[in-house]
Amino acid sequence: MTAKEAIERLNDLELKEFAYGHAMGILSYDDETVAPKGSRIPRGKTMGVLSELSYKLSTGDEARAVLDGLMEHYDELSEEDKRRADLREKKMRELRAIPVEEYVAYSELLNDASNVWREAKNASDYKLFEPYLGKIIETQKRFAGLVRPDMDPYDYCLDQYEEGLTKEKCESFFGALRARIVPLLEKIKAVGPVDTSFLSTPFPVSAQRELTAKLMEIQRLPRDNCIVGEVEHPFTTGFSKHDVRITTHYFEDNFLSSMYSVIHEGGHALYDLHSDDRFCFTSLEGGVSMGVHESQSRFYENIIGRSREFVGLVYPDLIRLCPKLAAHSVEELWRAANAACPSLIRTEADELTYPLHIMVRYEMEKAMIEGEAKTSELPEMWNALYKEYLGIDVPDDKSGILQDSHWSGGGIGYFPSYALGSAYGAQLLHKMREDFDVAEAVRQNELVKVNHWLEDKIWKYGSLYKPAELMEKAFGGPFDPTFYTDYLERKFTEVYGL
Amino acid sequence: MTAKEAIERLNDLELKEFAYGHAMGILSYDDETVAPKGSRIPRGKTMGVLSELSYKLSTGDEARAVLDGLMEHYDELSEEDKRRADLREKKMRELRAIPVEEYVAYSELLNDASNVWREAKNASDYKLFEPYLGKIIETQKRFAGLVRPDMDPYDYCLDQYEEGLTKEKCESFFGALRARIVPLLEKIKAVGPVDTSFLSTPFPVSAQRELTAKLMEIQRLPRDNCIVGEVEHPFTTGFSKHDVRITTHYFEDNFLSSMYSVIHEGGHALYDLHSDDRFCFTSLEGGVSMGVHESQSRFYENIIGRSREFVGLVYPDLIRLCPKLAAHSVEELWRAANAACPSLIRTEADELTYPLHIMVRYEMEKAMIEGEAKTSELPEMWNALYKEYLGIDVPDDKSGILQDSHWSGGGIGYFPSYALGSAYGAQLLHKMREDFDVAEAVRQNELVKVNHWLEDKIWKYGSLYKPAELMEKAFGGPFDPTFYTDYLERKFTEVYGL
Repeated sequence: MTAKEAIERLNDLELKEFAYGHAMGILSYDDETVAPKGSRIPRGKTMGVLSELSYKLSTGDEARAVLDGLMEHYDELSEEDKRRADLREKKMRELRAIPVEEYVAYSELLNDASNVWREAKNASDYKLFEPYLGKIIETQKRFAGLVRPDMDPYDYCLDQYEEGLTKEKCESFFGALRARIVPLLEKIKAVGPVDTSFLSTPFPVSAQRELTAKLMEIQRLPRDNCIVGEVEHPFTTGFSKHDVRITTHYFEDNFLSSMYSVIHEGGHALYDLHSDDRFCFTSLEGGVSMGVHESQSRFYENIIGRSREFVGLVYPDLIRLCPKLAAHSVEELWRAANAACPSLIRTEADELTYPLHIMVRYEMEKAMIEGEAKTSELPEMWNALYKEYLGIDVPDDKSGILQDSHWSGGGIGYFPSYALGSAYGAQLLHKMREDFDVAEAVRQNELVKVNHWLEDKIWKYGSLYKPAELMEKAFGGPFDPTFYTDYLERKFTEVYGL
Repeated sequence: MTAKEAIERLNDLELKEFAYGHAMGILSYDDETVAPKGSRIPRGKTMGVLSELSYKLSTGDEARAVLDGLMEHYDELSEEDKRRADLREKKMRELRAIPVEEYVAYSELLNDASNVWREAKNASDYKLFEPYLGKIIETQKRFAGLVRPDMDPYDYCLDQYEEGLTKEKCESFFGALRARIVPLLEKIKAVGPVDTSFLSTPFPVSAQRELTAKLMEIQRLPRDNCIVGEVEHPFTTGFSKHDVRITTHYFEDNFLSSMYSVIHEGGHALYDLHSDDRFCFTSLEGGVSMGVHESQSRFYENIIGRSREFVGLVYPDLIRLCPKLAAHSVEELWRAANAACPSLIRTEADELTYPLHIMVRYEMEKAMIEGEAKTSELPEMWNALYKEYLGIDVPDDKSGILQDSHWSGGGIGYFPSYALGSAYGAQLLHKMREDFDVAEAVRQNELVKVNHWLEDKIWKYGSLYKPAELMEKAFGGPFDPTFYTDYLERKFTEVYGL
């Protein structure tokens, strides 16, 4: 096989992998947005078949021949084809370590677990979900042992979402955050709360849908390639740069919830929408890791979206769509949107206490994977951690351990990406400011400047570089969480007039 | 291979075929209901890959071995497994006659054609769609020649949707219909129109959505297994008996449009929802042909839904949801819902003129397949046929040749099923009345009786029998279109007091 042939056969293989992933992705999107309850049975069957076929495709004779061909000509390959070869070797190693029956059974388990989690959350009854979570944890541990027997199992989980992330790095990172956030929260407590009561002003859902359209226009999300679905728990799914779906959930008495979820998911979407064209339908299309993905979404949500300039920018639309809000100034709204106060629900948490929610989940996941807690003890542990980290009592499973969908989808090791992404975002802001006046661009409704900068530094590269490498290129130096803690301190000092 | 092994391997093969069909079906449903415009590119790629893989699965070594095994033990097989073996042999013969590249290219062509048709319809510009229609016609002719060189090409097209239907049967059937419908329409013209002006009373879309829910309750459509989507051109898609999707389109000034489309699609859905459990995920699950399918949908829409008793049954909800309608009696509404008047749009046509719309399409399809008309001449031919059969002038392509989606999806030969289905329905009504008082059951909101009868005679059999065989069993004798023409004459004589 020549190098050229190897690449052609690689293109064909990756296109087939894309097709399986796309089909399974659409089945999941349909499930989350509209599918009737009974669809669980046929979807389980189809997911089982497709994941088996997809597994066989990625581990079969042709995949092996392609990998051999790539390795034989490795030195002749372009930078991007080298990366594709590396990713393929990694994928092959991981998949071949897991027996096909177990791989398929896990895919079926996750389909069931997602449905049961939803029922359990509605009933606020962890007991319903417990056996599924137990099996997910066992499977994750088993897969970690099979794929990377040399690696700590939780490090393996982290690495799935952020290549190279480890417990050790998390401990040091979270330690640095706690050391600055906890005293800052104490100071805020001492000066007393800002007024947030008017945030529950009734804002009709139809008007919120209009606001969504306006926000997408401000973020420059192309409607021909990006739609909005309505779901219980918002997420983004990018099938390709041509078709990315964001989702939201409207609450009449909490318009900021949907507003910031749209901006957050919009950040994810922009990243997926701007991979370089030459990566289409290859393993290099789309975001490289969850940490980098969350850096884009949380940058948009918090650093841009919760800035005074952004609040000022959307203010005329807010008071047009909900005239009662006109009784409050931009300044009041900005402060209210940044009120820092320990609360129960991660997705509704403010920017400052948010990392504490992540630390709770990080501790939970470590305990799950390291077998330090029985599944029956997990709710108790969750509640104790909320008391310790956030000082609040959890009244029930629905607003406690069952609040997030991640674990039901097998996403153990995902959560730390959110905090890491926030920190990446703060360092990106620092760097972006060296190039142009970010606040002024927001004020002038010129987010196109922000988008161009991010496209140039991050988005266009797709998965070409490893996450840490990509970020270091963008930062022009190593990652340093001090940019994040400095940013938080500066911002909340201003919000609370400390 | 033992008979038992052959059946086990057949089950596995059919489950995989189900999975591909399900995945492609969800991609199409997503396309029709929510997908952004740009999704066309990745969907085209994925459809191409999946249809190629699915083709290979159904024609490959394993499929051949399974078929050999089945044929070797044919005499030992149960009635249903014999039918599965026959269907498999037919499928294998058809697929193997078509080269894989052509099969895949056609699937990609149809993906593009559907999108272009939508654009062309919006722009009311047939020229945009013409090259796609031309390629579809050429491909259909070519496939007909490859698969059944012994058969008339248009007979082959008809047979795809109604096994055993031929041009000869169509000519005789349509001849019988024209002979009775045309004079009946003349008589109706002579007595003058019924009042239909109040049917455009504004009926808010949100209230129509409530009406849909009520209709689904009356039809006993289980919400856990059946949802309603909103689309341009309503259709039903059944993924399995656990998950069937109906769709509708709401017009504020024409509430009957959505009302009857929901009842129509509900009839399709009920059929798909009631295959016997043992057929799940096999080739016997779901309706056997489009003719039988349309017999269920058009039975529900017209024979049940446009009966005086049904109009009386929904009347209280109609005037609750749209109080202005209370100025009109049940009798007036029933007459208006049955007003017979030549019109432009098939899906909006009344029960009496409807078959004339089908005859136009039948003549068009014959001319397309038999090469009697150039694609550039088709709009002219369409317009001339509307003048001849319905006596009306077609103002533009949008309400002319571009009105239906069928041809853009490759559905040449489908339309005659609608008329055949209507005739099947009238003969079913005749038979049903021997068993119970159908009008009284409708009056008492006991459609469950109708459903049980249809389930017992039709639905539960899935695809176990050939369509003509199934219908003859249900009728207790041969098909006879006189039941249909008698039904039409009786009904319209009453509506118009002839």
